[in-house]
Amino acid sequence: MYTVEPIGRIISPFKEKFATPRQPGLLTSVQSQIILNTNFSKNAVRDLDKFSHLWILFLFSECINKKKKELIRPPRLGGNKKTGVFATRSNFRPNNIGLSSVILNKVEINKNNVSIFVQGADLIDNTPIIDIKPYIKYSDSHEDAISGYAQEAPLRKKVFFFKNAWNKQIPKNHKELIQEILSYDPRPGYKRDDNKEYHVKILHYDIGFYVLKSEIFISKIILLI
Amino acid sequence: MYTVEPIGRIISPFKEKFATPRQPGLLTSVQSQIILNTNFSKNAVRDLDKFSHLWILFLFSECINKKKKELIRPPRLGGNKKTGVFATRSNFRPNNIGLSSVILNKVEINKNNVSIFVQGADLIDNTPIIDIKPYIKYSDSHEDAISGYAQEAPLRKKVFFFKNAWNKQIPKNHKELIQEILSYDPRPGYKRDDNKEYHVKILHYDIGFYVLKSEIFISKIILLI
Repeated sequence: MYTVEPIGRIISPFKEKFATPRQPGLLTSVQSQIILNTNFSKNAVRDLDKFSHLWILFLFSECINKKKKELIRPPRLGGNKKTGVFATRSNFRPNNIGLSSVILNKVEINKNNVSIFVQGADLIDNTPIIDIKPYIKYSDSHEDAISGYAQEAPLRKKVFFFKNAWNKQIPKNHKELIQEILSYDPRPGYKRDDNKEYHVKILHYDIGFYVLKSEIFISKIILLI
Repeated sequence: MYTVEPIGRIISPFKEKFATPRQPGLLTSVQSQIILNTNFSKNAVRDLDKFSHLWILFLFSECINKKKKELIRPPRLGGNKKTGVFATRSNFRPNNIGLSSVILNKVEINKNNVSIFVQGADLIDNTPIIDIKPYIKYSDSHEDAISGYAQEAPLRKKVFFFKNAWNKQIPKNHKELIQEILSYDPRPGYKRDDNKEYHVKILHYDIGFYVLKSEIFISKIILLI
């Protein structure tokens, strides 16, 4: 047995697992901020900005006390076929450690606070970060890799707003972010009733939407704060 | 604080940190075997063989009780320039977790024992493994990544055997493996005296070698068992 301590936390637009992307990099418009704990100084990130991409290791903190399973139903397989836990990136895994590659935007240092701004992270708001490593192209990029059931990125749906769903007080970049996130159809494979209103929290909004085949209709956006 | 338990161990030809490659994938001829703990059944690896590459998360177990540093001297920078720990893959890092992508060769199941045979791992023999994840090309492969001081793979040196250094009892594939490993010049950047005999343990051999500019000469191979 071995202990791990978070090195920081992430601030992200995803407030719940539902609608959080299933892999990193699908939503490059998603901006997140990693805030290192104050015991790390600017020295710990010296030269980090010489890399375009980073690896983030994090804890699936919501799953830590949940029962572990050897078989998982990946959403990509429609939610009814079981696959071994080590053949998935599922959050229900023996050591609850997640791995995501992200684009590095900038490193910001304010007195004792080190922030790392990244793009494309698939992490829920407030997720504990346990490591950051540089992405090294010659050893990490395998263009020829065969990736089983996840060889290609998931298909996207068109996203429309019902009349009045989009209030002009909502900034345009938030509207676009909501649209991009929902385009991947966040519904789990085993729970896909069309004609039902689904709800998801993104940023400080509660968003209602319907799915009809390959189109998604946003019915309401409720401001939560 | 959070606890992590190894899921298994790796059997590798690298017996010490010296001469262990600094990144995965440099030595594709290196074969290793991950043996899962017996509490994992064949279910845990179902469909894993549909992926060509895997991620291995492991513990830098030799560094767990060593002092943590915010600044590291990467060997690639000659060993005298300091870089932030999060801008390196150094084993001296806050949570001692390592990350390597490897080629998956085969999954073997023998009664209650699950073994995963991989190629290109840069892990020392007996390293505790804490997770295995599939490599997903569309989210992990970034051909356009800029990787600071490690943009290109390190240069390799030519490796020769002194007369009598190579005994015919040593199988040819071991000879080739030793040659390939030493071609990356395992000496740390700050300790590069030519004309000195260095020693390294690989497989069950103790190997003596000299470095002269861009050439390496193996002076002896001593069988350890």
